[in-house]
Amino acid sequence: MSRLNKTPISLGEIAKLLGAELIGESTKTISGLSTLALAESCHLSFFANSKYLKALQSTSAGVVILEKKNLSHCPGDALVMEDPYWGYARVSKMFARPECKAGVHQLAVIDSTASIPSSASIGAGVIIEAGVVLGEQVVIGPGCVLGENVQLGDGCRLHANVTLYHGVRLGSSSVVHSGSVIGADGFGYAPHEGSWEKIEQLGAVVIGNGVEIGANTTVDRGALEDTLIGNGAIIDNQIQIGHNVVIGEGTAIAACTAIAGSTKIGRYCTIAGAVAIAGHIEIADKVHIRGRSLVSKSITEAGVYASGSGGVMKYQAWKKNAARFRKLNELVSRVVALEKKLD
Amino acid sequence: MSRLNKTPISLGEIAKLLGAELIGESTKTISGLSTLALAESCHLSFFANSKYLKALQSTSAGVVILEKKNLSHCPGDALVMEDPYWGYARVSKMFARPECKAGVHQLAVIDSTASIPSSASIGAGVIIEAGVVLGEQVVIGPGCVLGENVQLGDGCRLHANVTLYHGVRLGSSSVVHSGSVIGADGFGYAPHEGSWEKIEQLGAVVIGNGVEIGANTTVDRGALEDTLIGNGAIIDNQIQIGHNVVIGEGTAIAACTAIAGSTKIGRYCTIAGAVAIAGHIEIADKVHIRGRSLVSKSITEAGVYASGSGGVMKYQAWKKNAARFRKLNELVSRVVALEKKLD
Amino acid sequence: MSRLNKTPISLGEIAKLLGAELIGESTKTISGLSTLALAESCHLSFFANSKYLKALQSTSAGVVILEKKNLSHCPGDALVMEDPYWGYARVSKMFARPECKAGVHQLAVIDSTASIPSSASIGAGVIIEAGVVLGEQVVIGPGCVLGENVQLGDGCRLHANVTLYHGVRLGSSSVVHSGSVIGADGFGYAPHEGSWEKIEQLGAVVIGNGVEIGANTTVDRGALEDTLIGNGAIIDNQIQIGHNVVIGEGTAIAACTAIAGSTKIGRYCTIAGAVAIAGHIEIADKVHIRGRSLVSKSITEAGVYASGSGGVMKYQAWKKNAARFRKLNELVSRVVALEKKLD
Repeated sequence: MSRLNKTPISLGEIAKLLGAELIGESTKTISGLSTLALAESCHLSFFANSKYLKALQSTSAGVVILEKKNLSHCPGDALVMEDPYWGYARVSKMFARPECKAGVHQLAVIDSTASIPSSASIGAGVIIEAGVVLGEQVVIGPGCVLGENVQLGDGCRLHANVTLYHGVRLGSSSVVHSGSVIGADGFGYAPHEGSWEKIEQLGAVVIGNGVEIGANTTVDRGALEDTLIGNGAIIDNQIQIGHNVVIGEGTAIAACTAIAGSTKIGRYCTIAGAVAIAGHIEIADKVHIRGRSLVSKSITEAGVYASGSGGVMKYQAWKKNAARFRKLNELVSRVVALEKKLD
Repeated sequence: MSRLNKTPISLGEIAKLLGAELIGESTKTISGLSTLALAESCHLSFFANSKYLKALQSTSAGVVILEKKNLSHCPGDALVMEDPYWGYARVSKMFARPECKAGVHQLAVIDSTASIPSSASIGAGVIIEAGVVLGEQVVIGPGCVLGENVQLGDGCRLHANVTLYHGVRLGSSSVVHSGSVIGADGFGYAPHEGSWEKIEQLGAVVIGNGVEIGANTTVDRGALEDTLIGNGAIIDNQIQIGHNVVIGEGTAIAACTAIAGSTKIGRYCTIAGAVAIAGHIEIADKVHIRGRSLVSKSITEAGVYASGSGGVMKYQAWKKNAARFRKLNELVSRVVALEKKLD
Repeated sequence: MSRLNKTPISLGEIAKLLGAELIGESTKTISGLSTLALAESCHLSFFANSKYLKALQSTSAGVVILEKKNLSHCPGDALVMEDPYWGYARVSKMFARPECKAGVHQLAVIDSTASIPSSASIGAGVIIEAGVVLGEQVVIGPGCVLGENVQLGDGCRLHANVTLYHGVRLGSSSVVHSGSVIGADGFGYAPHEGSWEKIEQLGAVVIGNGVEIGANTTVDRGALEDTLIGNGAIIDNQIQIGHNVVIGEGTAIAACTAIAGSTKIGRYCTIAGAVAIAGHIEIADKVHIRGRSLVSKSITEAGVYASGSGGVMKYQAWKKNAARFRKLNELVSRVVALEKKLD
């Protein structure tokens, strides 16, 4: 799959797109992308991590996007620019799959009160309930269910088998991958005499523009207010977002992170994978949380945070340390006793 | 969405429902619910957490449910009762969405041997296999798949895109949210000469009455016996329940918790989010497990339990502590040596 | 469900299948499987764990599979062989559900360019896009979506509501359970001036022969190269496999484990549940990772590994230990100071 062939694109065209300086022939073409190690002469590659210096020096790529300072290591043609990784991201879009054809599949079920522009593409088996409003050029993959009064802005895309409950709203150009469920009930119950009284979840979920949500992620609807995801946030797979959570603009959250209800996460945060975040707390802007951390209290200051007792070690050694952890408080008392004796 | 308007309801009617004492005019009406801070005069709100005392004192809510002792802080009408949060839960149900219309969508696929009462509501794209038996007033959302011989009691509701494998049984009034999969094979294989021999999973999943299961949760079928979830249990999103697990009546489990096979969890337990529970253990009744804990052994006594090394700190400080954890056993030896020297 | 009745099978037939020595009458039949404790005379059971010795001694099972050394404890007929658990696994297959009937449901939507042999079984509501190629006797459960150019080898089975994105390939005899999503975009973005530039994910997912994938698992497509899962790997529920991950032959991964992008896991590893594995690392063959561990660096040697601070304890005791962890580095300094004083 990596050696995907497309209509060839000239280096001149790419240089223009990127605003990059081309060291090479502008009429030469490339027809695919690859890593430095595997690239052939028909491929474009990029150099953004010094770890791959040797791969750069011996690459067969037709052209490499790189910074000026690394030009001397490049054996062939180059596109010189400040941020090669971003350049590669932009070029990758030239290799994206073709757009879906507009039109409604005959086996889609669409309520007569829904508003579906003719530019929309609606797959087979899609179910669209009353009052749904879709923007221009929206793409709805096969098997999606859109509950009553869902609203999707222009250019949104739902991949196959996405479920949006009633009243969920997405801004423009947002994407949701397969298996994700947006707008299921938050986990709200009042305990009463040994049983749980369900609290109706009357809020919705409101998602901004240019948001991407991965596969099998869940975002619960609010209890009274709405659950909110800001513009440009990127949310990976299997993430759980509880009711009334607010996620700020441009924040990135990696897979398998869980965020309990009513927590507010600031803007431009990066939250790594498998993080657990308690409910009813606030996290400031530009906070970076490392993988597998637990956030149990509010974080008021930008910076990098982590928790946990570190990565794996051989089982036998680990076992002893973990046993010691169980008596850590006692150990401190023993040290205090020693300190007193010595004073 | 929070300021949802419905047919107005009189305070007298609400007081009667709740068995609350009304301090105010019984013919006055409210038409929605809101938080103390955001409520307007058409809204009912509630005061159940002293943290919001200021919001109570300045609320514009038309009426507030509260305890007698807090009445003096309420600037307007009040509904006085012992458990305001429970009162709010009950009132919230007046604002629930209208019931689904009975009937079978013409694009549902229903095996001729299935038993579907006329009071059931079956959405578009639903697939119901042979021998399925549904109770009265069951609601099956669009895109659900019910395998052979599934049985659902009266008043059950499956939201869109739920998958129930063959033989899964739910009692009455149980709810499953979208994307959940009940009855997939448990993870059972016998290792043999470097490969894994699959063990057929011949049990089923039996779920009691009044159970609610969130979105994208998985409950595996038993290997020989059945996997069991007791009456009134509440199970949040993205929870994994392994084969042959037994969950007691009234137990609540928050999102992203994983329970390995053959473990038995007692009644009236609360298990917070992102907890991992080992297989083949037993947890007593009324055990409360805090978020992100690991339960690796049986718990025989009611109480509150936790594990882990606590929440995040600044990365640089954390890094040192985590490094020290790797040599904790050695540290204890050093303290022992000091103690000996000093004796 | 455990006392499933089937056409009775004779002990002679079972002994032959297993290559076991039958101590009993070869014409006697059993019609179901059960645990030692619950078995009746019509059931076969097995003894593979010394913990159940008492259950063996008092079992009413019609026949028990066991090792020669335990024969004296068995009150009835026995099938003697070296690996009883494997024997049970093999016998369990005699009780598997009947095969699905070949044929395409009339409410499946199949692109005219797809290649579907007449031996395939395609359920209702299935959507198969252009260029898909299915092998012989493939079973596709209701509601599955197969994107363009998906390829499934002979004997593959997708349970209901599985989503395969374009270009995903499975070898022969592989199984995917409901709700799983194979081939969604990897989480690849280049940060640029406060926003995230999406990197098109141009690789695919290639899965070998005899692989089983559980429910609600996600396997992302590669960025440039493909994400790879080797022959005979078994992957449980709610697992996240990031883009460009490589999983070796015969490796077993338990539920809720998350593997970040570009990590390579060796062959014949066992990774327990709720493990988090960082991206861009390598794990050697035959590595065993215990539950809830974090793997943040490469592991170059076979063996058993673990991390974390152990399982739960009473909350009040735990709280003190966790507080001490926050000052562990300081504690070490205090011990060092004591050591100096005493020298």
